[in-house]
Amino acid sequence: MTIPATMRALLLKHDGYSAAPSDASLADMASFVELGEIGVPEPGPSQVLVKVRAASINPSDVMFVKGLYGQPRHKGQPAGFEGVGEVVAAGSDAAGQKLVGARVAFPTGLSNWGSWADYAIAEAAACIPLIDGVNDVDGAAMIVNPLTALAMFGIVKEEGEKAFVLTAAASQLCKLIMGVAAEEGYRPIAIVRRDDQIALLEKAGAAHVLNATAPDFDAALKAVMKKEQPRIFLDAVTGPLAGRIFNAMPKRGRWIVYGRLDTETTPIPEPGQLIFMHKRIEGFWLTNWLRAAAPERRVGVVMEAQKRFADGRWSTDVTAVVPLDEAIARVPGELAKPNGKVFIAP
Amino acid sequence: MTIPATMRALLLKHDGYSAAPSDASLADMASFVELGEIGVPEPGPSQVLVKVRAASINPSDVMFVKGLYGQPRHKGQPAGFEGVGEVVAAGSDAAGQKLVGARVAFPTGLSNWGSWADYAIAEAAACIPLIDGVNDVDGAAMIVNPLTALAMFGIVKEEGEKAFVLTAAASQLCKLIMGVAAEEGYRPIAIVRRDDQIALLEKAGAAHVLNATAPDFDAALKAVMKKEQPRIFLDAVTGPLAGRIFNAMPKRGRWIVYGRLDTETTPIPEPGQLIFMHKRIEGFWLTNWLRAAAPERRVGVVMEAQKRFADGRWSTDVTAVVPLDEAIARVPGELAKPNGKVFIAP
Repeated sequence: MTIPATMRALLLKHDGYSAAPSDASLADMASFVELGEIGVPEPGPSQVLVKVRAASINPSDVMFVKGLYGQPRHKGQPAGFEGVGEVVAAGSDAAGQKLVGARVAFPTGLSNWGSWADYAIAEAAACIPLIDGVNDVDGAAMIVNPLTALAMFGIVKEEGEKAFVLTAAASQLCKLIMGVAAEEGYRPIAIVRRDDQIALLEKAGAAHVLNATAPDFDAALKAVMKKEQPRIFLDAVTGPLAGRIFNAMPKRGRWIVYGRLDTETTPIPEPGQLIFMHKRIEGFWLTNWLRAAAPERRVGVVMEAQKRFADGRWSTDVTAVVPLDEAIARVPGELAKPNGKVFIAP
Repeated sequence: MTIPATMRALLLKHDGYSAAPSDASLADMASFVELGEIGVPEPGPSQVLVKVRAASINPSDVMFVKGLYGQPRHKGQPAGFEGVGEVVAAGSDAAGQKLVGARVAFPTGLSNWGSWADYAIAEAAACIPLIDGVNDVDGAAMIVNPLTALAMFGIVKEEGEKAFVLTAAASQLCKLIMGVAAEEGYRPIAIVRRDDQIALLEKAGAAHVLNATAPDFDAALKAVMKKEQPRIFLDAVTGPLAGRIFNAMPKRGRWIVYGRLDTETTPIPEPGQLIFMHKRIEGFWLTNWLRAAAPERRVGVVMEAQKRFADGRWSTDVTAVVPLDEAIARVPGELAKPNGKVFIAP
């Protein structure tokens, strides 16, 4: 295959971090990335060059381009943390050479060459060669959400209680978690903000779905907590709502923050609960989890994720697949639609 | 020794818990306890009856009488979590019988017969027979603060970093912690609210003392955090100040709440730090620690505490020893004075 000298990509417009708080919406995408033409990168010895077929847009991508994610931006580099594509070149290491010609799901985390581009660079060891049953959009969203889902559900299982709480429960990530959980007899308590999500999430595996904007929410929450005694609260929103949920949890409750969709101040309503009820507040970040997890556990969740997409237990709800050239004009509008995922396809 | 039929005691005026938030001041002591005459209790098989010589007033006592501590109140029972006195009677078990005649430090935690009285009931197994070098006020404050100090300093040691942060650092508890810490080469960072406490705490073992009301506090805090890289923050206050301190801590910082002196809302200034900086927020309660700790660890800290008081490495700063009859009139005023401890003596 002939590899061109240059390629199109959505390039970061800023360096480092931003001090301005913001949420996970992307109405002002043009403030953060621009379509540009740059040289096609060369893979290092342990890397591969992937011709991108599709790249997903995760909440973590949005926070990253805004400078609000835990990694610094590099101006002029393509954005995009994961994608699917064909390996068209590789560095000198055998691991990468063996992948040439393969269709792979890939993360770009360590390479600084993002997936919102015609070509991307990934570490060969981090690529997942895809079996035929996995389609391109599933492959493009195979890593960030599925691994986070399986890793966080692992925390629920370690803690032992069958019930656990989720905010922003209509997200793709939460639907993945609830599917696995329901299969294994766990009881997700899904917190949402709209009644039309209730039936959808019950189907996705939720044991209870509560609308946080309903007038009887606090009473309903209290009743569910009493009945189900959840220990783990997987929280993507923070802010006052998350504080109220944590406050209603029983003894030994653990508030695990993995997202920050609400930028309002986050209160701890009754700090005495930390003392007398042995509650605690912590965070989850896939990057840290991958660093700290035992290799067999890491490989286990990767295999598990691929099997689930291949046999149809998991699938990706697609809002839109937007061509790279149209991304800045169309992605903000597509992202604002509920319940599905948006992809960029060169 | 003849034991009378009745005794004087400061009796709880309310049952259970209170819903009204409050701080650790006790200006309205008369709202919560009253001087009364009740029957002298009979020790159960595993218990002893102690003729009280002195009883301390800890912040946990204040929170308890107000109904804001992790144990329910029982109306008509004496308050007071610990004291010193002579064992004058015992239940049938050999452990208690052996203590008759001994001067002991005692906790009342499980007996519901408090130490703010002429006589108190304690579990024989929890009493600490005192050696001569330990005076009565040291004995009366031998358990709650010293064991909390040694248990929390144990957490600092387990975490490994030499530096750690303390709020309400002029408290007796913090002075105990700083003394042990300095001896072992640890570097306490003491946060106070008044300049006249600075020299005092440097003497007590603080590596740094910062006045939180100083105009350059945030800059000074930032500089100290950068230099010392503390991991543990032992917090007795909560509220906005504690949030600011947690926010300034480096990666992997742990905010350990053991008191609630500030009743203002407690914010988590940047919840993203929980995710990307691996910080967490938890609580410490001696009662839980004693339940969970290995017996040899428990015995170890009790022995260590007594040795430290006996050989003079630790001593108790006394603000006042107030007679039981005068307690309700005088204790609020004495408690409002800084830097020392208030005792009640029958």
